[in-house]
Amino acid sequence: MSSYSEFDLITFLRQRCRRAPRHLKTSIGDDCAVFAPGFAHRMVCTSDLLVEGFHFRKEWISPQFLGRKACLVNLSDLAAMGARPYACLLNLALEPAWLSGQVQALIEGFVSEAEERNMPLIGGDLSRSDRLFVSVTALGYVKSGEPLLRSTARPGDAIFLIGDLGYSRLGLQLLKETADLDLSGIAGDDELRRHAGSEERYRCLKAHLCPPVHAEEAVWFQENQAARAMIDVSDGLAADLRHILDESGVAAEINVEALPSLEGIDSQDALLALLLDGGEDYALLFTASPEMQERIAQEYPSDWSQPSLIGRVVDGPPRLILVRDGKRRTYEPRGFDHFQ
Amino acid sequence: MSSYSEFDLITFLRQRCRRAPRHLKTSIGDDCAVFAPGFAHRMVCTSDLLVEGFHFRKEWISPQFLGRKACLVNLSDLAAMGARPYACLLNLALEPAWLSGQVQALIEGFVSEAEERNMPLIGGDLSRSDRLFVSVTALGYVKSGEPLLRSTARPGDAIFLIGDLGYSRLGLQLLKETADLDLSGIAGDDELRRHAGSEERYRCLKAHLCPPVHAEEAVWFQENQAARAMIDVSDGLAADLRHILDESGVAAEINVEALPSLEGIDSQDALLALLLDGGEDYALLFTASPEMQERIAQEYPSDWSQPSLIGRVVDGPPRLILVRDGKRRTYEPRGFDHFQ
Repeated sequence: MSSYSEFDLITFLRQRCRRAPRHLKTSIGDDCAVFAPGFAHRMVCTSDLLVEGFHFRKEWISPQFLGRKACLVNLSDLAAMGARPYACLLNLALEPAWLSGQVQALIEGFVSEAEERNMPLIGGDLSRSDRLFVSVTALGYVKSGEPLLRSTARPGDAIFLIGDLGYSRLGLQLLKETADLDLSGIAGDDELRRHAGSEERYRCLKAHLCPPVHAEEAVWFQENQAARAMIDVSDGLAADLRHILDESGVAAEINVEALPSLEGIDSQDALLALLLDGGEDYALLFTASPEMQERIAQEYPSDWSQPSLIGRVVDGPPRLILVRDGKRRTYEPRGFDHFQ
Repeated sequence: MSSYSEFDLITFLRQRCRRAPRHLKTSIGDDCAVFAPGFAHRMVCTSDLLVEGFHFRKEWISPQFLGRKACLVNLSDLAAMGARPYACLLNLALEPAWLSGQVQALIEGFVSEAEERNMPLIGGDLSRSDRLFVSVTALGYVKSGEPLLRSTARPGDAIFLIGDLGYSRLGLQLLKETADLDLSGIAGDDELRRHAGSEERYRCLKAHLCPPVHAEEAVWFQENQAARAMIDVSDGLAADLRHILDESGVAAEINVEALPSLEGIDSQDALLALLLDGGEDYALLFTASPEMQERIAQEYPSDWSQPSLIGRVVDGPPRLILVRDGKRRTYEPRGFDHFQ
């Protein structure tokens, strides 16, 4: 017996989800959600898992932050296409040992982030389990033109990055190395800051627990035809750039000096590994033709996170070439395999 | 270390999923799937979980049948709206201990069923886990009119059922009671029949492992405006009818003698419990106005599973009234709560 019933949770969800996306006809409470898709030139959809013991540990993330993160990593996949978020579905497998307040905190974290980011919750499923599982499906759209793919980069394109690299990995390392850092009850950013102990540590933990997805910026590039190929950096800059290269059949040169800085790291090798293979950065990586570069220079909003020019797409079989002090070397992403 | 890599699985999936739904622009291999929704007057979406140790046990269902069932239970939610299937996404959390052949059998079972049922796989996510976890999102559509809701039943409607009741529950009981029945390696219907030992047991096991979803029939009722409210019977006839009654604000009388038969059950009480509270039947339950009933009588295809008239919607606060030998009594569904 748990302290909550399925009926209570569904009632809570129906009451909590007051904000519906436009054109929604039926939401939580029927077999399916229903919407009229006339607003969309293209629909995009993606689905991502977070699994206890693998993607997260309960001591390291509170229910509220887990809800927020589950929302944001899916939002990031929409952003990777330059798509506007439309709505999402949430599947939760919950331990009966959880208290009602923990379940509600997870849902509250998820729903508040989803509504804030214009991706309201419209359906899903609840189940019992002896491991916590969160599975989210996100639906997005573009109003005209095509979503930004991985397969459309061309030699001569510039390569841009928006966002930080490495902080999320540093946050994860902090969690692994700091035995007394129990974040399982953290209810918001202020509390996280207090627990972190310093602004530097807060920045790393925040990047790991609640990634700063650049959703608005991504949409700008799609709607202003200012990017050719795009991806979000979830596995690490090197691995995700490699996805673009593989799908597009091109190579890339990355100017190491142009990569974003990362404070407090002394070793050059450690720094490079964090920047290129950190993972879970949720930065935005894209290529742009010369005309697109001009458009970006002239029209990209000056008060948003600015794109950094970090390299260029070149002819040749898919590979990543690092350039530093005029020297070039091939870099193999430290491939992350879920099953190895 | 497991016997398969994420890369191998994605390659297998991309090669296996050769059939794309119409209007699909981008499938597995980018951050999102992309499609042009112009074909749809309404889109519907649903997402369902299957969790090891709760929805299934590995001794009782083979990877292939688990894949098929995960597909079918989601298809059934589309059918409940009278919606045509469009496509689906599959999230899998897999044990590293599984062999490559087991993973491929699960995917093969899922994909073959999805393609057979016109709901091709277009995306998803893979992860490691120490419990097996399957999460599916299904997308469907209607070409015109509105999907069939739970909230639209009216007094005077007839109540119809298509499909069997109770067999799936009997199948589950067989699995629980037959210690030496190991179905973990079963690769298809013929093998299941051989393991079952009798045609009667095969029917029950098949109903439980691979429910006969009435997807085509459901679409007919939506497209021919021949049903008012509809639901699929997944929690049991009484509980799911009760969903219609609650959402529509009406009561229902069910004629017990009109319920489908179930062979081999002697006790009247046990029979009624199986029919009303069995669960996982995936039969189709709907209401129809007098004009709709006439249309069904004249135009419903004679070679499909036939609808049985089992009762009618009446005025009054939501409750289920059983009628037998002219006597009426209120019946409370044995509510199934995932957390109790």
